[in-house]
Amino acid sequence: MNLSNLTVSDMIQGILSNNVTIVSKVITLIESTKPEHKKLANEILEHCLEKETNTLRIGITGVPGAGKSTFIEQFGQLLTAQGKKVAVLTIDPSSSKTRGSILGDKTRMQELVKDPNVYVRPSPSGNSLGGVTRKTRESMSVLEAAGYDIIIIETIGVGQSETAVHGMVDFFLLLKLSGAGDELQGIKRGIIEMADSIVINKADGTNIQNAKLAQMEFKRALHMFPPKANGWIPEVLICSALENTGLDAIWKLISSHNKLMKKSGYFKKNRQVQNEKWLIHYLEQELLSDFYRNPKTKKRLPLLKEEVIKGKLSPFSAAEKLLKQLRKS
Amino acid sequence: MNLSNLTVSDMIQGILSNNVTIVSKVITLIESTKPEHKKLANEILEHCLEKETNTLRIGITGVPGAGKSTFIEQFGQLLTAQGKKVAVLTIDPSSSKTRGSILGDKTRMQELVKDPNVYVRPSPSGNSLGGVTRKTRESMSVLEAAGYDIIIIETIGVGQSETAVHGMVDFFLLLKLSGAGDELQGIKRGIIEMADSIVINKADGTNIQNAKLAQMEFKRALHMFPPKANGWIPEVLICSALENTGLDAIWKLISSHNKLMKKSGYFKKNRQVQNEKWLIHYLEQELLSDFYRNPKTKKRLPLLKEEVIKGKLSPFSAAEKLLKQLRKS
Repeated sequence: MNLSNLTVSDMIQGILSNNVTIVSKVITLIESTKPEHKKLANEILEHCLEKETNTLRIGITGVPGAGKSTFIEQFGQLLTAQGKKVAVLTIDPSSSKTRGSILGDKTRMQELVKDPNVYVRPSPSGNSLGGVTRKTRESMSVLEAAGYDIIIIETIGVGQSETAVHGMVDFFLLLKLSGAGDELQGIKRGIIEMADSIVINKADGTNIQNAKLAQMEFKRALHMFPPKANGWIPEVLICSALENTGLDAIWKLISSHNKLMKKSGYFKKNRQVQNEKWLIHYLEQELLSDFYRNPKTKKRLPLLKEEVIKGKLSPFSAAEKLLKQLRKS
Repeated sequence: MNLSNLTVSDMIQGILSNNVTIVSKVITLIESTKPEHKKLANEILEHCLEKETNTLRIGITGVPGAGKSTFIEQFGQLLTAQGKKVAVLTIDPSSSKTRGSILGDKTRMQELVKDPNVYVRPSPSGNSLGGVTRKTRESMSVLEAAGYDIIIIETIGVGQSETAVHGMVDFFLLLKLSGAGDELQGIKRGIIEMADSIVINKADGTNIQNAKLAQMEFKRALHMFPPKANGWIPEVLICSALENTGLDAIWKLISSHNKLMKKSGYFKKNRQVQNEKWLIHYLEQELLSDFYRNPKTKKRLPLLKEEVIKGKLSPFSAAEKLLKQLRKS
């Protein structure tokens, strides 16, 4: 099939019939930074968004070594065994620098990628987090139109990506390791508060006791946070992705969350709020980059900053000096 | 004294000699929204910033009922007894609507306001949080030039004001109440992580046991957070402002924090970072308000938002439609 000869209508038909080659081609279009690709991608996206879908979006975050790949490998198979079509998108802006992320991710989930009901796509390489999350979010819409029931977004959870992922999913799962003292290590501020569930992985062999201790610690920690607006009380579970134990309970928890949120109307409301937030966030980011790219800003701001840091100028009057100059022109 | 006849030089001299009438007059100038007042205020501020000072800025936050006024009343007296000059500024954007905040605050700290070495100033009324915090921050510079050794910024800590206060002080203290279950009530997300110390107030009479329990709970909760960049490990103390117990230990803690931060260079670095952040924050806020005030934005944005919420348009392409229109003009 010569893909470059496809019309927009061909591509939309291809997506709706889940032609994997076309789906991949469109996601590549979305990932492209060329203006003509962007225009085409937006047109296709609008058609994708027209389709009513019933997808569940799950975010999975955890530090490197928490066992995310093995977890998704097993969890994905649990879902496909129930007849569900599963797509996995990963956000890891750093991975492309350290290793070939496409090969890396595909190797990581060896069983899953063989399944015809599974689509695995690593993050586009060499982009800023903002670019990556935009592309992930829009790719998700394509996969939903293609009929995937569950979209899993994986993030390494040590940068800012987890906030972005939290803003595009229905359920946010934090995968943790147990182990002596590990409960207190590497927890980024704010992640625990975002989690709908914390899952302690690698609860196997001699590690089971540690996992149970970590579970208790986290239950206690979660207890200190105020209740979520949607009424959901996050749960702490343990599992072993390696030995395939505890995954059923996790899926049961996610399903019950989904049922509750749909019943209360919060599921739909959350998605609307997320959409609105992305609009505003993206708008503001673009406006501010215009400002920082402005030659006047580039020249004047560092000098004013210096004055402010030295304490010679109030931050506010420094800002006003620059704004006055910009507004004049 | 006819204040309207004062020259800029008179006012600066008045501040440097801590003429309370002139200090108050200048703070009123800072609080004014009139352009001519703003210009004059900025000029005076630049002079105030020239003076080398050795002030300690303490932020105190806590929900209504935590006993902040009584605490500051007692704590302030402890400081003045050591020969220190103390200024208290309050940020409470809501207070002016519910009661006369000037009278309210002055009534609340009856003993303290009588002391000639103490200056108490409530937040200006009827302003947005942004306006109030700017004014609080600049008023602080005037008071520092006037020779106050300790500046206490009080905030009710239920809105967004505590983040702003955290960004303008050297030490951030969270005042809490003990009481059955209260440990878990009304803790705003993020406040605990910002605190350099949590103080459980009203540890008196039959409440002492509860206070000690709350102390333990909070110690455990703090334990779950990653260490602060400056190496400081927040402490949880108990006190009774009413019975004047435990305040010495709090001052000792703040002093030891101050000594450590000065020794490590973090004190100065923190202030520089704070200044820089205020500059950027204020700049960006102003740029975004320009955007939201733009008639084109006002007309188009709500329509695009509607499309996005309905799921008919991707948030990103909606944003680009608007940006394209704005950049064209």
